[in-house]
Amino acid sequence: MANAMSTQEQLACLILDEVAALTRDGEGITRESYGKGEELAMQAIENYAQTMGLIAERDAVQNLWLRLPEDKRDAPAVVIGSHLDSVPQGGNFDGLAGVVAGMLVLDRLRDDIESAPPVRVLALRGEESAWYGKAYTGSLALLGQLPASALQLRHRSGTGTLGEALAACGADVDAIERGKAAVDPKRIAAYLELHIEQGPVMITRGWPTAIVTGIRGNMRHNRVTCIGETGHSGAVPRWLRKDAVLAVAELLSRMDEHWRVLLQMGMDLVMTTGICTTPANSHAVSVIPGEVQFSFEVRSQDKDTLERFYQLMQDECSAIARERGVSFEFDQRLYSAPATMDAGWIKAFEEAASVSGASAVHIPSGAGHDAAVFANAGIPSGMVFIRNANGSHNVHEAMDTADMMQGVELLIGALQGRGAP
Amino acid sequence: MANAMSTQEQLACLILDEVAALTRDGEGITRESYGKGEELAMQAIENYAQTMGLIAERDAVQNLWLRLPEDKRDAPAVVIGSHLDSVPQGGNFDGLAGVVAGMLVLDRLRDDIESAPPVRVLALRGEESAWYGKAYTGSLALLGQLPASALQLRHRSGTGTLGEALAACGADVDAIERGKAAVDPKRIAAYLELHIEQGPVMITRGWPTAIVTGIRGNMRHNRVTCIGETGHSGAVPRWLRKDAVLAVAELLSRMDEHWRVLLQMGMDLVMTTGICTTPANSHAVSVIPGEVQFSFEVRSQDKDTLERFYQLMQDECSAIARERGVSFEFDQRLYSAPATMDAGWIKAFEEAASVSGASAVHIPSGAGHDAAVFANAGIPSGMVFIRNANGSHNVHEAMDTADMMQGVELLIGALQGRGAP
Repeated sequence: MANAMSTQEQLACLILDEVAALTRDGEGITRESYGKGEELAMQAIENYAQTMGLIAERDAVQNLWLRLPEDKRDAPAVVIGSHLDSVPQGGNFDGLAGVVAGMLVLDRLRDDIESAPPVRVLALRGEESAWYGKAYTGSLALLGQLPASALQLRHRSGTGTLGEALAACGADVDAIERGKAAVDPKRIAAYLELHIEQGPVMITRGWPTAIVTGIRGNMRHNRVTCIGETGHSGAVPRWLRKDAVLAVAELLSRMDEHWRVLLQMGMDLVMTTGICTTPANSHAVSVIPGEVQFSFEVRSQDKDTLERFYQLMQDECSAIARERGVSFEFDQRLYSAPATMDAGWIKAFEEAASVSGASAVHIPSGAGHDAAVFANAGIPSGMVFIRNANGSHNVHEAMDTADMMQGVELLIGALQGRGAP
Repeated sequence: MANAMSTQEQLACLILDEVAALTRDGEGITRESYGKGEELAMQAIENYAQTMGLIAERDAVQNLWLRLPEDKRDAPAVVIGSHLDSVPQGGNFDGLAGVVAGMLVLDRLRDDIESAPPVRVLALRGEESAWYGKAYTGSLALLGQLPASALQLRHRSGTGTLGEALAACGADVDAIERGKAAVDPKRIAAYLELHIEQGPVMITRGWPTAIVTGIRGNMRHNRVTCIGETGHSGAVPRWLRKDAVLAVAELLSRMDEHWRVLLQMGMDLVMTTGICTTPANSHAVSVIPGEVQFSFEVRSQDKDTLERFYQLMQDECSAIARERGVSFEFDQRLYSAPATMDAGWIKAFEEAASVSGASAVHIPSGAGHDAAVFANAGIPSGMVFIRNANGSHNVHEAMDTADMMQGVELLIGALQGRGAP
């Protein structure tokens, strides 16, 4: 009930609701990386920052930075960041909650700036791989680590590239191509991120908040093409067929069984083929399918597991190609390394929880986050998870702002516990 | 070489090439049922009929009939028919060759009308199921056998129905709905069809022509929907997933294995899933797929085999739904009965072949044809196949007109062998 909410929680609801209204798409929320919805969210955050008396500035790769004008200190800052983009028809809290939490932290520290290190809030672009097939493009570009080849990645619609979208929204594409960082990493003392949990564990166990220990990496192909041979469905006997759908069905069934066995052996692993399609312009009920395009993704906290499961997939493709007379073509392999969260910040979150009474169970992150990019760049990083119903990347994602406020307390407690430099 | 061709073969090439040029679509040929390409083909045939001095008339369901003005006889006619539509980006000869062959037969009989029964050529619409998910709509509507429910079938694009398309091209939809035939079946003495073989058997064996003994029936769903649950690909553990792609992959792999075993047991059977897609507007590499739509088709010369394999598929869906927490939803089940060709016409083709020297091996038709509709309506029916490279329903379909001319000789020989009534 509104009258039970703190002023800060009311403000959080206002911002969350306004960004949702601006970026609603049917039942869900669509904030395209470097596209319209993400830009609308950026502008809404800029407007609220102005209302709150914060300084808002965009960097050379068009991420948004917020800070307190009163804080004149020159020491490296702790960055509280998350992303503003979403998957197509996704939920409102995946990413946005972390930016709003950062704004509340700045608002709270204003009265006692010296109690904590300098803080910057960072609203990142392009975290979701759903649009250009690559995750963390905003944080990678910021740190000068976005590979030049990624600029050629095509939009999910097939038209336009990531480089073109970056240029269109004003990012310095030349600098990205040269690997020039938009911020000096030495100026970042730490990177902290509050994010909803994207799986069902916390909601099932009843934990409002949790401290993240590490982040799964992933290995993927956005597009694998299985090439068979089209033909009349009634007239070609089984032994002369090169059916691409049955070939891919066998591949995925084999990999699904390998996955089951490897889990029983205790490995950390998830496998997903989120996209699987016969060609819309030529497929038909009565045509033997000559082509299937599908995505393949594997995630693990262990990089050796990623590499070995990937090789297993390649081996199965070779075997099925021989047996069924089809071929498999792979686009560029993409890799995001697993990451470990900083022990010092984990401890600071634990101490903050013991003061505020928040739940502080440790949990690994199955999903990837920008925090992995900062951690793997050598910047001490920490993450707080907020429980969230119905998973994420779908329209039913649901976070309670009361839980988020407990997460804000953890951020503030940890910052004040670490103290000013 | 053109100078080695008969005048009739040159005419055949002219008509085939002109219709191809009118309906070219990229590399292939597109003649949509009750749509633009089919109508262009109809008009081209009407124009050539006029040039050849034939009478061309459309019936109440917009099929095209051609006849010799000189033939005033009142006896039931032998109908030589085939279809003018094609699959999307298909080949030029599937259907069209049979209509052109019929025109050449009329042209040849003109000098000796009394040597054969009265002949009508019938250019049918809507044979291909690729557009509205149902085959033989032109011949079914002609005989008053198109179910009224079929008028509600949606176009492959999702917009518009078969009933709307029929109405737009001038067909009497009310009559179709009432099951009123556009021709009195008693006026059809027999139905003959020349068609390219749509499989690889004749090209492999070196048979220019063959006599068809029977036609496979089929049972199908144009759309089965597997419903699972979307979720973040990294954050939901295996035991909590309801992955629609892996469920469908398992279903198809199981059915593929059943198919293999049943073939070894000697059953006549082919199984095809030509369409299999995750939703284009919401699928993503990093989203557990919550929905897959796919088609399912089984064909056999034996109706019990169709029914039993279909039930096996339903049983596997139930088992997989229980094991994986998904559900399967089925659209209307469509059924085309297998058909047997008339023994008298098979004999007449054999006798014609012994005179002309054409190859007359017997072959079953794996593909469906309008001839099955006429045969199952009790009209004696016969078919001649012409060899054809690279299969059909694809852009590389290739028939030699010299082979087609041998098929025309079989039609004329059989007609004259059966004699005038």
